[in-house]
Amino acid sequence: MTLVHKEGKMSNNTYRQIYKWGDPKKEEKLNHHAAEFLEKSFGIKESPKPQLPGDTDIALKRKKTLPAKITNKLKAIVGENNFFDSDFERARHGIGRFYMEILQARMGNVENPPDAVVCPRTQEEVLQIVKLCNEWKIPIIPFAGNSSVTKALQAPKGGVSLDLKNLNKILELNETNTTVTAEAGVFGPVLEKFLNDRGYTCGHFPQSFEFSTVGGWVAAKGAGQASTGYGKMEDIALAVTVVTPEGIIETKPYPAASIGPDIFKFFLGSEGILGVITKVTLKVRKYKAEDSSMTSFIFPDFESGCKAMREIMQGGFGKPHFFRLQDPEETDISFRMSGKEGSISDKFLKLIRYYPMKRCLMYVIIDGDPDYTKFLLKKVRKVAKRNKAFETGKSVVNKWLEQRYSSAYLRDSLMDQGVMIDTLETAVTWDNLLGLWKAARDYVKQKQNTLSLVHISHAYENGANLYFIFMCPMDAKDEVGEFNKFHKGLIEVIHKNNGSLSHHHGIGRLTSHLMKEEVGELGLKTLQALKDSLDPNGIMNPGGTLGLK
Amino acid sequence: MTLVHKEGKMSNNTYRQIYKWGDPKKEEKLNHHAAEFLEKSFGIKESPKPQLPGDTDIALKRKKTLPAKITNKLKAIVGENNFFDSDFERARHGIGRFYMEILQARMGNVENPPDAVVCPRTQEEVLQIVKLCNEWKIPIIPFAGNSSVTKALQAPKGGVSLDLKNLNKILELNETNTTVTAEAGVFGPVLEKFLNDRGYTCGHFPQSFEFSTVGGWVAAKGAGQASTGYGKMEDIALAVTVVTPEGIIETKPYPAASIGPDIFKFFLGSEGILGVITKVTLKVRKYKAEDSSMTSFIFPDFESGCKAMREIMQGGFGKPHFFRLQDPEETDISFRMSGKEGSISDKFLKLIRYYPMKRCLMYVIIDGDPDYTKFLLKKVRKVAKRNKAFETGKSVVNKWLEQRYSSAYLRDSLMDQGVMIDTLETAVTWDNLLGLWKAARDYVKQKQNTLSLVHISHAYENGANLYFIFMCPMDAKDEVGEFNKFHKGLIEVIHKNNGSLSHHHGIGRLTSHLMKEEVGELGLKTLQALKDSLDPNGIMNPGGTLGLK
Repeated sequence: MTLVHKEGKMSNNTYRQIYKWGDPKKEEKLNHHAAEFLEKSFGIKESPKPQLPGDTDIALKRKKTLPAKITNKLKAIVGENNFFDSDFERARHGIGRFYMEILQARMGNVENPPDAVVCPRTQEEVLQIVKLCNEWKIPIIPFAGNSSVTKALQAPKGGVSLDLKNLNKILELNETNTTVTAEAGVFGPVLEKFLNDRGYTCGHFPQSFEFSTVGGWVAAKGAGQASTGYGKMEDIALAVTVVTPEGIIETKPYPAASIGPDIFKFFLGSEGILGVITKVTLKVRKYKAEDSSMTSFIFPDFESGCKAMREIMQGGFGKPHFFRLQDPEETDISFRMSGKEGSISDKFLKLIRYYPMKRCLMYVIIDGDPDYTKFLLKKVRKVAKRNKAFETGKSVVNKWLEQRYSSAYLRDSLMDQGVMIDTLETAVTWDNLLGLWKAARDYVKQKQNTLSLVHISHAYENGANLYFIFMCPMDAKDEVGEFNKFHKGLIEVIHKNNGSLSHHHGIGRLTSHLMKEEVGELGLKTLQALKDSLDPNGIMNPGGTLGLK
Repeated sequence: MTLVHKEGKMSNNTYRQIYKWGDPKKEEKLNHHAAEFLEKSFGIKESPKPQLPGDTDIALKRKKTLPAKITNKLKAIVGENNFFDSDFERARHGIGRFYMEILQARMGNVENPPDAVVCPRTQEEVLQIVKLCNEWKIPIIPFAGNSSVTKALQAPKGGVSLDLKNLNKILELNETNTTVTAEAGVFGPVLEKFLNDRGYTCGHFPQSFEFSTVGGWVAAKGAGQASTGYGKMEDIALAVTVVTPEGIIETKPYPAASIGPDIFKFFLGSEGILGVITKVTLKVRKYKAEDSSMTSFIFPDFESGCKAMREIMQGGFGKPHFFRLQDPEETDISFRMSGKEGSISDKFLKLIRYYPMKRCLMYVIIDGDPDYTKFLLKKVRKVAKRNKAFETGKSVVNKWLEQRYSSAYLRDSLMDQGVMIDTLETAVTWDNLLGLWKAARDYVKQKQNTLSLVHISHAYENGANLYFIFMCPMDAKDEVGEFNKFHKGLIEVIHKNNGSLSHHHGIGRLTSHLMKEEVGELGLKTLQALKDSLDPNGIMNPGGTLGLK
């Protein structure tokens, strides 16, 4: 689903950039396959004029409540130029990228803006802000790449959004240890370019890669598209520095240790509730793009694809870095959106009995030493073929890679056309995977005229994730109510069918109502105790994050 | 250093089994190479009659203080047959396998015995015991394999040693997920035999393998000899059930998740301070011994060996499972103890310039798919040779494997002959490894007539462990004082040279005085808060474990 970028057209549309993904000056339009698809699926004819354009002023109902004394002190810490309390900046910092936040912003509504935004330039300034806010019991909401899809950036109790964009230095590449240390506000592409130029990769490519930061990766415990090989952020991160209301915690980048419960791990997935992450040390790997091997396969059905994936992960011969399996409907939509439907290759696949709405695409990329990538590709091929796969080659993978970050852009364009689209994701053991997939699919399909796209994008020896995308025309009468009901129902189906509340998006304030059931009453109490010990006044991202106070 | 087992000789020596490693009915004697070595190194002539034989009664100075009411309630829970408060059982449960504990036990002294020992048969009984003790504020010290070398099993505040030996059931092998779930008291060999019989391995082979349990592995965050490939226990364990004073926590075996700070990880390395681990779920891997590849290399010096090891770990082509590099002195002693000194192969190695006290032995075993083990062996060989290694083949590895668990036995025999021998271990990043190795070696060598054996037995992309063995004749006048001073000094040298306080032994009450420096004052406060939340009355392994109350 590639997009056409048109420069300049929206440059005078400042409010749109509050929720828009990517460069605010660029407008994305659906390509003709996508437009055709829209019409076929939902009877929606592409309109040049967006519904819900979202270019009107956002009226903040919540007034600023910070006393002038505090405002002045904050300005004194960060400088006038790094303090903001305009409605525009408050609105921009009061939402992330969750569908409902964006929908409401388009309707002119930002429910939980912070009172002010501060952009400290150093860890010392972060410390001063945290001390000040702790003294006055003012909430702090850490903010960086702004790609949260879990309502984690909202300020239901007001307070200060602490934007880490100025903590943007890469501090050290240690080539002996193969680690990189960077300030929390370094964005994905900056880090990756720095590393690539020196023959390394961080290996972390979330879909939000362009607009997410190293600190956010750790705080959300994210996963990149190549996580099967490189690991999730909890496998990549080695150490962290965090400014908490009780002081600074700086953990050491030991390769491993046995010195009690690992304090470093307390901050992985901490989502801002314990303190402000200011610095992280990550593993890096030697990387040359030309050494990678890749291919794709088509399986007759999802079951065969899953079985092959599991056998590869449990095969004891290594694992792909990028490993993705689309379910039949996602595979079908991929064919249609790329204009492959009815093509010679489509006809050929049908002839050899890989039928639409049954067949499943698998993508494989292996990084590393060139002998290894060739060796592993052979092994993967063998297992895939034993499980009835037909090899569809490199070009399919390259096509996918071209648009690997663009479905994040696509949502704005689809919403412009009145399409509701959102995602949920989960982790599940292999024995529960197909049952959960079916149950979630059945649930989504109960809703009239709704597409259900599911894929596995992160595989493990003991299970995998499932990523759910659903899409249907917006409800003209009550889109907010309709979406909320549907979304809540789906996460309950996932939870009841043994899926985790999240695999890599995190919890935020979105699925936090199920945290007690997920981790148990005592588990949640323990998390609250951990928070209370580092944040006794409850100022760090308060108001429901992770189901806590 | 192989041992000669003689059956039966000590069967009437009940007190010796309180500290003795292995079957109390077996006596180990040094083989003739070891005896020769002893005489050459320390001028100690093997004596048929052990010094400090440790076969006299242990007189417990500390009296039992549990009220009869509690004793009766405990008996009612576990049954008369599973309750013990004889001096023998109190002494046996009041020490682990730390050198100083054993030395003192040989002298008839067990300083911190529990008041009683209970052996619950079910998790329900564990819960009842924990509830009862919590109500009456009676300390509980979880006890299983008894292989702790960190004073973690002592009861400085008295109380109850909770021996998990009856929780010994393997509950489920899930071949779809490749996981096994077992009760905490299942011993290594029982689990491994069960898995091997079905084509799997757990891959966890600590030196204490024969006398340690799955629950202890998790509590101590241990590492096995094949941890480079299979991972440390924190990489192998997937879920845990823990009975805490506040209730039961049962985590889920998701392959990964992002649902806040991971509660499961709180219990990895928790060393009994949070609750009693009753059940664990571990990863298992498919395993056929005949598929493994192995070899060994000799390097001209430690630096070359370390460099090769690092390059292999960072090579992007896979990693060995068992990966070990001995420093020059350990290599030298290996040669001497195996009778290789002066042999044809020794002469040949000298001829091609691999000189004693410079050359270093590296051992490699690769498990898994047979194509993979062959592929990786070739890659390893290439890197080793590039770093000036000479390949010494399989037999050296097989020789090592024959006695992989026996140096644990050896200590008793050496102590019988008046030799002080103990170990410390650490994790360190690659850039600090050689500096730390030299500093620790310099420290040990300051002590007259002391051997310093060092090896790397667990390697990572970002660093490795260092394992220190030191050995010298016991101080006839003040062995206790002399040892304590020396041991304390060495851990300080490690700490000052950027090594972790432990890589896999844990902290216990041994190096806990340095925990504040290791994790920071705030870090330690946070650990205490975590403990307080699950154990508000401070009954779980209290009195200094991990530097906590």
